[in-house]
Amino acid sequence: MHQIKGTDLLKEFDIKEAKENIGKEIELSACVHKVRQMSSFAFVVLRTGRYILQSIHDEKNCHDSIEGIKEGCFVKVKGVVEECEKAPGGVEMKLSSIELISKPEYDYPLHVSNRRLGCSLDINLDLRSVALRNPYERAVFKLQEGIVSAFREFMLKNNFTEIHSPKIVAQGAEGGANIFRLDYFDKEAFLNQSPQFYKQTAVAFFDRVFEIAPVYRAERHATSRHLNEYIGLDFEMGYIDSMYDVMNMETAMLSYMMDFLKENYAHEISILDAKLPEVKEIPSVTFAEAMEILKGKGRNKFDLDPEDEVYLCEYAQKEYGSEFIFVTHFPAAKRPFYAMNDREDPRVALSFDLLFRGLEITTGGQRIHNYTEQIEKMKSLGMDIEDFSSYLDIHKYGMPPHGGLGIGLERLLMKLLNQQNIRQASMFPRDINRLLP
Amino acid sequence: MHQIKGTDLLKEFDIKEAKENIGKEIELSACVHKVRQMSSFAFVVLRTGRYILQSIHDEKNCHDSIEGIKEGCFVKVKGVVEECEKAPGGVEMKLSSIELISKPEYDYPLHVSNRRLGCSLDINLDLRSVALRNPYERAVFKLQEGIVSAFREFMLKNNFTEIHSPKIVAQGAEGGANIFRLDYFDKEAFLNQSPQFYKQTAVAFFDRVFEIAPVYRAERHATSRHLNEYIGLDFEMGYIDSMYDVMNMETAMLSYMMDFLKENYAHEISILDAKLPEVKEIPSVTFAEAMEILKGKGRNKFDLDPEDEVYLCEYAQKEYGSEFIFVTHFPAAKRPFYAMNDREDPRVALSFDLLFRGLEITTGGQRIHNYTEQIEKMKSLGMDIEDFSSYLDIHKYGMPPHGGLGIGLERLLMKLLNQQNIRQASMFPRDINRLLP
Repeated sequence: MHQIKGTDLLKEFDIKEAKENIGKEIELSACVHKVRQMSSFAFVVLRTGRYILQSIHDEKNCHDSIEGIKEGCFVKVKGVVEECEKAPGGVEMKLSSIELISKPEYDYPLHVSNRRLGCSLDINLDLRSVALRNPYERAVFKLQEGIVSAFREFMLKNNFTEIHSPKIVAQGAEGGANIFRLDYFDKEAFLNQSPQFYKQTAVAFFDRVFEIAPVYRAERHATSRHLNEYIGLDFEMGYIDSMYDVMNMETAMLSYMMDFLKENYAHEISILDAKLPEVKEIPSVTFAEAMEILKGKGRNKFDLDPEDEVYLCEYAQKEYGSEFIFVTHFPAAKRPFYAMNDREDPRVALSFDLLFRGLEITTGGQRIHNYTEQIEKMKSLGMDIEDFSSYLDIHKYGMPPHGGLGIGLERLLMKLLNQQNIRQASMFPRDINRLLP
Repeated sequence: MHQIKGTDLLKEFDIKEAKENIGKEIELSACVHKVRQMSSFAFVVLRTGRYILQSIHDEKNCHDSIEGIKEGCFVKVKGVVEECEKAPGGVEMKLSSIELISKPEYDYPLHVSNRRLGCSLDINLDLRSVALRNPYERAVFKLQEGIVSAFREFMLKNNFTEIHSPKIVAQGAEGGANIFRLDYFDKEAFLNQSPQFYKQTAVAFFDRVFEIAPVYRAERHATSRHLNEYIGLDFEMGYIDSMYDVMNMETAMLSYMMDFLKENYAHEISILDAKLPEVKEIPSVTFAEAMEILKGKGRNKFDLDPEDEVYLCEYAQKEYGSEFIFVTHFPAAKRPFYAMNDREDPRVALSFDLLFRGLEITTGGQRIHNYTEQIEKMKSLGMDIEDFSSYLDIHKYGMPPHGGLGIGLERLLMKLLNQQNIRQASMFPRDINRLLP
């Protein structure tokens, strides 16, 4: 028997700490990113969990040979930190020792140490475990962490409770054909298309809830903006006066998020050359107004096409200097059965989309809270009430007025980085053709 | 068009704020928890998203009638806050106005306002959307939020990067029969049994990663300690010297977690009457030592039974005053193919379990990082290398020494609360018989 004390935790290299240790010897473990042999010394560029650190190996200061130490090796090094304007992060390390910890069997099949990989997206995704060792590629997912952290921090500050709802369900929340079927012992089950029913349920006892979790859509088409599994940033809030309370909350959250990213992820923003939007106020138009704006561009329609989304964002940019625009009051027929219809015009639903840089990144709205109203709407849609009796318990036993939304994490990230394909914003994307890695 | 400003966010009621507003009028929305009519006034007990607030209605101070306002109604109230030692939270509210916002169609089928529901677990789970309105029941999941927040906060502080890995996969991480099959267009797919492959992959570029996400096990048996879908708290770290670095990190994390819960969730700890463990140091025994300790209790075996786990925890409590105990060096045959075997005795794997109050809540260990070593082990187990070629890319192109673990969130919560059945620790549990709600 011995005791595990939970102290002396291994530290991780931090470029800021290095800068505070100029002239001192530090020790760290890292991956060899690149070795460049010069006449009398060598640059051994190291890749830590977040940074690139240039080190200098010469035989005078370091008795360990670097023969055999190449790109992809893992090493433990010691050395004195020195200022060096030209080096990444403004510091470099004069090696006094270097020890090989682990050596790869094969050379990288990609140009990991180039600024950009320069391969096709398919090759990048096939060789994902190597591609992500490229500092640009991994920075995408460090920034993704920032988006998630900002969302969560904002939600918690505003008294939302974090919940975890099941993804294996007996009924899909959004209906339709785009749902994955599952062998669940001897029963029929599905992968949930959204945490909708559960977050509404939780509003009855927590008032405000959020969830960060996978969402499944069995879309048969392979587009640059759809994934079959993605991360939903969902929230739902009670005691709203209208859906504008939800939109207000989202606007404040996005503003908080951009500030949070600038403060905590400046390193990645710089690597990715990301232009974060200013979020002060977001213009909001009704679907009918959007149709007016689009006139000449489109036909009379009941929903927005991808091209419409692009056009409306250009319009918002030109007219209001905003990269975001809300569209509200969609035709009820195009929105889910739990959407509340407008009291004045029941042909439209109290629901909204948020468009950002030409793409819908959020769908939300006010939900029906009254039992009779929900039953009536379902009947008018020809739905079988019995199929949803468990969900309808929440209306039966009472709900406050409430609403919420879902944000597609990968869509938001993709647009923040002006990526062309949503697969670039997913660490291990799933589409109709891709299940690996 | 109008602008959404993202300001003037609706505030949530907080009992601490109420206490700072003694003598002042405040306004809030809440659910009516209970109404108790007295001779000249009524107690209208309100339930907010986290607290219970007692309010007093009398006709002199409040012109709004409370006729028809009953348990389960949602109301907006105004009133002056007064100190009241006997009331929950030490304050009560003298109502000056009360407005009905939403009324349930049916009375609650459970005793929501009792301290404990007093119904069977099956009824509780069948009527989950009502059961969770009980302050005790919902406190379980507020505390769950705290566990998750503490885990995440500790990980982020220690430079772990949060990742999101796919749950739809082509290969299960743990193998065996307990895996859910999926119709994925025209391919065979599965629900992942753990993020193992992906967190290892991410160690190659982030050094340290964690994930909080659902995990799927198609266990055919219905026990009090298994769920078919649960939340895994997973982490994986590079550059370890041995699996003890991982155990050390977990010990520090658990210690941090208990402090975090005491500081931020005292309200729920009190409602739940939870006894949090002291985590200073955790005794660790090898599997062989555990067998010695168990001698007389059990036969010679290759794994721990549930009764063994109970006995070992009793032993740790008695001998070392610890409610936790690590067991290390399990027989290699009982651990997964990616576990590193002990260099001195390849019959045992460098892997461990953490037991807490009689139950295994963590499995972890050091992983194989060398390509040849991993291939050899898989061959010796009769596995087809081709099936795992995508995963094996990480070894092929190099990995640092690394290890990690997975904690079952519901198991940890269940044991913190000394619950008898893991379903009590899952908001919407999934088992072989339950897919609803």
